[in-house]
Amino acid sequence: MRRAEQLQKLFEEYLLNQKFNDQPRNLFEPFNYMLRLPAKRLRPVMALLACEAFGTDAKKALPQAFAIELFHNFTLIHDDIMDRAPLRRGKPSVHNKYGETIAILSGDAMLVFAYKYLVQANEQLVPKLLQVFNQCAIDVCRGQQFDMNFESEQNVSLSDYMKMIELKTATLIASSLKIGALVGGSNEKDSELLFLSGKELGISFQLRDDLLDVFSTSEKSGKQRGGDILQNKKTFLFLKALQVADDKTAAKLLKYYSSASASVQDRTRVNEILKIFTELKIEELTKLESENHFKKAMSLLQKAKITNERKGKLILFSKSLLNRSH
Amino acid sequence: MRRAEQLQKLFEEYLLNQKFNDQPRNLFEPFNYMLRLPAKRLRPVMALLACEAFGTDAKKALPQAFAIELFHNFTLIHDDIMDRAPLRRGKPSVHNKYGETIAILSGDAMLVFAYKYLVQANEQLVPKLLQVFNQCAIDVCRGQQFDMNFESEQNVSLSDYMKMIELKTATLIASSLKIGALVGGSNEKDSELLFLSGKELGISFQLRDDLLDVFSTSEKSGKQRGGDILQNKKTFLFLKALQVADDKTAAKLLKYYSSASASVQDRTRVNEILKIFTELKIEELTKLESENHFKKAMSLLQKAKITNERKGKLILFSKSLLNRSH
Repeated sequence: MRRAEQLQKLFEEYLLNQKFNDQPRNLFEPFNYMLRLPAKRLRPVMALLACEAFGTDAKKALPQAFAIELFHNFTLIHDDIMDRAPLRRGKPSVHNKYGETIAILSGDAMLVFAYKYLVQANEQLVPKLLQVFNQCAIDVCRGQQFDMNFESEQNVSLSDYMKMIELKTATLIASSLKIGALVGGSNEKDSELLFLSGKELGISFQLRDDLLDVFSTSEKSGKQRGGDILQNKKTFLFLKALQVADDKTAAKLLKYYSSASASVQDRTRVNEILKIFTELKIEELTKLESENHFKKAMSLLQKAKITNERKGKLILFSKSLLNRSH
Repeated sequence: MRRAEQLQKLFEEYLLNQKFNDQPRNLFEPFNYMLRLPAKRLRPVMALLACEAFGTDAKKALPQAFAIELFHNFTLIHDDIMDRAPLRRGKPSVHNKYGETIAILSGDAMLVFAYKYLVQANEQLVPKLLQVFNQCAIDVCRGQQFDMNFESEQNVSLSDYMKMIELKTATLIASSLKIGALVGGSNEKDSELLFLSGKELGISFQLRDDLLDVFSTSEKSGKQRGGDILQNKKTFLFLKALQVADDKTAAKLLKYYSSASASVQDRTRVNEILKIFTELKIEELTKLESENHFKKAMSLLQKAKITNERKGKLILFSKSLLNRSH
């Protein structure tokens, strides 16, 4: 069984061999642009790891891993339009570079290609793969819509937020593991354990991301520190703070979050919010929540019938993702 | 074998029984809105007719017919965003009614649901259905991108245009027939004959649409007469006129098409163009081209191993579509 770094390399080689040269050129240029931006390939590597965990060469799951990466990139392209995001991974987003109509259509085509790769498997496996993938794709759309709705909703609860990140982020990680496991020859029970484990992992990662946005000490994230605060985003940190704060502090927090983000005031605003977060020990509370979901993920993984050595590789990779400082 | 009207009714009943009630509500409202706008259901009815042509109850192909209608509506939602179209079937388009972000995401979800319905078939049929559907979906995206590119391209040829409508319009009609035939138990050869016949039919219909936009005497089309001319659209009529015109007339035509569409001048502009079209016998030439493709469609259909009675129903429906005056 290969290590995660080897699988990432294997995946990158496969990805670079996939050609999108059809006409019209401008429909397929965003494929090559997006897929070649430097990325961690977290989801495809998880799929490949899950495949090898059941004793099958990861090469067998490369089309499905690529399908997952295509799907992920399709969501990024369309999300960036909806969020009016000018940048993606430090480079111009697709709609910024190629225009919005190409970004919509190219994303659509990318979703279709995801299906095309997904079903490059043994025929008897295809309906099962589609079932997992379809449910995942619908959930990701639902999660994104919840996320957008939250922007204008006043009373988003912590449990609303947890449900949203489960749909928007965790389901795809869960499905990557399940799809990899199925291609690897896993039975229904074990692949479902990996799915459930992946959900907990995904939630754990997202909470870690929320945390790093505010408390990262590294320059490597490529994002503006406190970007979520500047955008008044209702993250776990903000919602947890509201939950544990006394009425006076909660009112103060709400005031800072509702104030128009006039850029001259931004620095002060971020600092005031950070002060409240520190008083309420939000960093510690978020870390704790993230770790609890990680523990749940590991305990679910332990139940799957996989040799300890193979489990170790999955655990090692998961830990490396959780413990990154950027 | 049922008649087309009966199949349309059967399809409408099925459609109204499909519920899209999941959360968040606003993601699924456009499903119910779009799917309930009055529509001819041309593509699903073709799929159902093709299914019965091979002696199988059309009910068996209802999920696939619905998948095709979902796909068609997904393309309409996204196309309307790209074309900045405020209306669809005389009602507000989805992005106009619900906002652009919901229109993008709801369209995405609709495409996923199309796949969900498509694969509700015998397992051994699923890979084949997916192959037809995936290729169709990619071609439709390509056709739409060509269409958008043509708006700003100076030298669009008649053959460029024919290729574009084949991808954007004819492929989906061809695939509807093929998918219906496959569910109906057709062999590969006959389903491919229906596919090829559908391509010719689709081209024939599109040329007829181009014609009706300019020469329709009916109010029933729900569209503005000469809408394509007002939008400077490079339709078959315009490109054919350019092809057969002498240099002087061609120059005049190009001038009218390039002039900014200031609304005070529009009536004059449309009338001048109509005059040129009449001089060049464009109505007759377009009708002829449309009829030629229709004849090809019928001759391909004749080759399929279907009883004459069953063929008759398909032919009757196709003719009714071609001969409509609006």
